[in-house]
Amino acid sequence: MAPSSVTVTSRFHESVTRNALRSYFAEFISTFFYVFLVVGSGMSSRKLMPDASLNPTSLVVVAIASAFALSCVLYIAWDISGGHVNPAVTFAMAVGGHVSVPTALFYWAAQLIASVMACLVLRVIVVGMHVPTYTIAEEMTGFGASVLEGLLTFVLVYTVYAARDPRRGPLTSIGTLAIGLMAGACVLAAGPFSGGSMNPACAFGSAAIAGSFRNQAVYWVGPLIGATVAGLLYDNVLFRSYPADSTRGEGIGV
Amino acid sequence: MAPSSVTVTSRFHESVTRNALRSYFAEFISTFFYVFLVVGSGMSSRKLMPDASLNPTSLVVVAIASAFALSCVLYIAWDISGGHVNPAVTFAMAVGGHVSVPTALFYWAAQLIASVMACLVLRVIVVGMHVPTYTIAEEMTGFGASVLEGLLTFVLVYTVYAARDPRRGPLTSIGTLAIGLMAGACVLAAGPFSGGSMNPACAFGSAAIAGSFRNQAVYWVGPLIGATVAGLLYDNVLFRSYPADSTRGEGIGV
Amino acid sequence: MAPSSVTVTSRFHESVTRNALRSYFAEFISTFFYVFLVVGSGMSSRKLMPDASLNPTSLVVVAIASAFALSCVLYIAWDISGGHVNPAVTFAMAVGGHVSVPTALFYWAAQLIASVMACLVLRVIVVGMHVPTYTIAEEMTGFGASVLEGLLTFVLVYTVYAARDPRRGPLTSIGTLAIGLMAGACVLAAGPFSGGSMNPACAFGSAAIAGSFRNQAVYWVGPLIGATVAGLLYDNVLFRSYPADSTRGEGIGV
Amino acid sequence: MAPSSVTVTSRFHESVTRNALRSYFAEFISTFFYVFLVVGSGMSSRKLMPDASLNPTSLVVVAIASAFALSCVLYIAWDISGGHVNPAVTFAMAVGGHVSVPTALFYWAAQLIASVMACLVLRVIVVGMHVPTYTIAEEMTGFGASVLEGLLTFVLVYTVYAARDPRRGPLTSIGTLAIGLMAGACVLAAGPFSGGSMNPACAFGSAAIAGSFRNQAVYWVGPLIGATVAGLLYDNVLFRSYPADSTRGEGIGV
Repeated sequence: MAPSSVTVTSRFHESVTRNALRSYFAEFISTFFYVFLVVGSGMSSRKLMPDASLNPTSLVVVAIASAFALSCVLYIAWDISGGHVNPAVTFAMAVGGHVSVPTALFYWAAQLIASVMACLVLRVIVVGMHVPTYTIAEEMTGFGASVLEGLLTFVLVYTVYAARDPRRGPLTSIGTLAIGLMAGACVLAAGPFSGGSMNPACAFGSAAIAGSFRNQAVYWVGPLIGATVAGLLYDNVLFRSYPADSTRGEGIGV
Repeated sequence: MAPSSVTVTSRFHESVTRNALRSYFAEFISTFFYVFLVVGSGMSSRKLMPDASLNPTSLVVVAIASAFALSCVLYIAWDISGGHVNPAVTFAMAVGGHVSVPTALFYWAAQLIASVMACLVLRVIVVGMHVPTYTIAEEMTGFGASVLEGLLTFVLVYTVYAARDPRRGPLTSIGTLAIGLMAGACVLAAGPFSGGSMNPACAFGSAAIAGSFRNQAVYWVGPLIGATVAGLLYDNVLFRSYPADSTRGEGIGV
Repeated sequence: MAPSSVTVTSRFHESVTRNALRSYFAEFISTFFYVFLVVGSGMSSRKLMPDASLNPTSLVVVAIASAFALSCVLYIAWDISGGHVNPAVTFAMAVGGHVSVPTALFYWAAQLIASVMACLVLRVIVVGMHVPTYTIAEEMTGFGASVLEGLLTFVLVYTVYAARDPRRGPLTSIGTLAIGLMAGACVLAAGPFSGGSMNPACAFGSAAIAGSFRNQAVYWVGPLIGATVAGLLYDNVLFRSYPADSTRGEGIGV
Repeated sequence: MAPSSVTVTSRFHESVTRNALRSYFAEFISTFFYVFLVVGSGMSSRKLMPDASLNPTSLVVVAIASAFALSCVLYIAWDISGGHVNPAVTFAMAVGGHVSVPTALFYWAAQLIASVMACLVLRVIVVGMHVPTYTIAEEMTGFGASVLEGLLTFVLVYTVYAARDPRRGPLTSIGTLAIGLMAGACVLAAGPFSGGSMNPACAFGSAAIAGSFRNQAVYWVGPLIGATVAGLLYDNVLFRSYPADSTRGEGIGV
């Protein structure tokens, strides 16, 4: 057996240890409830006001739900799985070498299955309402929407890296809160233009259950690029004085 | 006297020590004000807009009140009673062996009496308004509503366990805040469908004063099951590497 | 000179040291901006919607402003003056022996002057708008409103004591935040009924500038009683196992 | 070479070290996203409701976006650049001697360029909508608006200094959160009167892209004076017992 395949095999084995399985489970739980609460709050405001997509109060409902839910689901997964809850974060971590590729694939699977199941449960429980999908405002181009989603995912992932940075000192305690609040602010700014997903899992799950993958690429291309740039920038420019291992030791990844 | 009855007696005595009484008192105060603020904010938005149950702003009012109030009442009870403030949490803790059955019964009594008294005070002070009860949307089945309340109670209780987990490190400082924010997000997602109680005490108190126990089972069955599953899952899957005692030493229970 | 007058004189001298003057100054700054932001946000929503007192969005505006402003003004005064920013808190601290009577009087003076000045500045800057005063809903009795304000001040002051409690451990870091969020929840629940002042300084300042002291007693009697009961209860029931001095050493008072 | 020019040269060299460049970059990122999210949320609510400037819900949208975004962008820059994100803070720090003049000029450049670029990106992405500028209510004088912006910048910068104060103890962990929440409360109070900028970079960037510098002085004179007074007051009155160096050692400035 060649050394490289030894590595692949051992890396795969690393990905199915008890701790790793616990990580996937934690990602599943957190992503399930994040999508459930964000999509659920969209349905909730739509029920109260059928033309809700045209109302700033609905924007507040979804933004607060996103901020509160993300703060909390990151909190419960933070020390178990690293608190990704977003395929874009996992992608950036894999590119930056913080998680191995097999582990990243298991994370993606856990996140996407969780999202589809969350939307399915909502669809079944709430009889007679459709699961809303992310849509792009008429005057926006697909490219513009992708840039917008990418920029917002950039700052969100940048915050995730900052929250893991050991130089943060006492501020470490509010790391998950800072990420959640940032997501809320992003929804307020982008909601009526591109939907404010910043998380391919959210867009995928709602599209899968609604049966419409229109514009799905927008919610993958922008965020994956934005997240990767944020990760590389943080690791190589802002964090250059620290060896890569110390970041790892702080618990990023499995 | 047989050993088992010795245990029962000594367990009962443990439940009426000075520290235990202080715990019940803390649960009473916290549950009283939680119900007072949540139900009060519902009455408040109803007064400003008589058809408030159909308005997303009222949803925001009740959700923010729930999030802020729960964060704070857990904060004041956290190191005294363990910060349950919810019969479903106490039930899960009793099933998991974190509190003894007699103690759990005293907790339930404190919580339910507090809730009834909070609604009674609201009813007396605010002349001419009815105390609102939790209702289920027309298109929802009772079973669906119970599943919804159960799922949301699951994630809420899971967060309570996570906030007690000694592995949380510096994030421990925002534990009560994370639980409160999660409650707010749950209200935003479930409000127009099942009311978003996630706390049998809330539903019981408002029903007792309004005199209508219609659908009361929905607010007990789902949450009790959801809370128990969350507790067992956290103790046995996510927390397996720690001996049970260490959780206890962290202050869960009396 | 009799011993008692020695004590009076030395207590008075304690009240005019450099550190004490710094405390009064910190109380002045914090109360000024608290009143400025709460009353200002009321004027702000009234300007956007002239019949704002009948709208739940205005309630959200004032509640969020109260929560955010109180969290922050307590934060900046916490380690300098003890972070009262409320004559009811100072009264409870004086009754409980945490601050001396002359010091309490200087605190009251700083708080009341700050509040009047904040309302005066708002009146002068915002040409053509009246400073709103706290009012009681038609169907409420003055007694009911006083009970409501008293209950909410009780829980607010109880939280202030809890935030100072050395048993709080890591939760100490979010003490001022918990108090602020509680104030926000109280405004949401009491706003349309009694105004949700829970702070005699707020009610006094706006009444002084608006020139109407109607129902002023409601905003003093309830809160002062509620705050005192909260303080005595916390010191004697919940905190009994600690000597009184240790509380003091934690920085309550000057 | 005379000693003074030695100092100037060495101070300039200090301003272009690797750490200093990292600081400017951090200021650029944080200011870019702060302006992007605040101005973007204004455009967002304007899109949902074309007469949004007359609606209290839009005020809530912008206030929450400001609070959440500022908390987070300060969080990510706090230990790298000192977390100014506001030319008024940098000005006060330069006057108080916490940063050198050349460094302050680089900070200003980073902040102003970031703000212009953020508004430019919004203008390009969101086809067919104008970037909104800060405006003054008809009944306000320019002087009154400047006083209002100055007072609010005073309390914001005072909070920034408090968050850096080593006496803050465990509260240090929520420093950036306290500053963000204060910004949110200020927007709620000042929004309909002067816009609630409290940050000359915000006003400059939106004016540059909208092509209208009307009333621009209001958003510079008031905030710069307010910030400077806050800084001098904090350093000389509230913080007098500590030597100036210890503040510096805490990380204010580069």
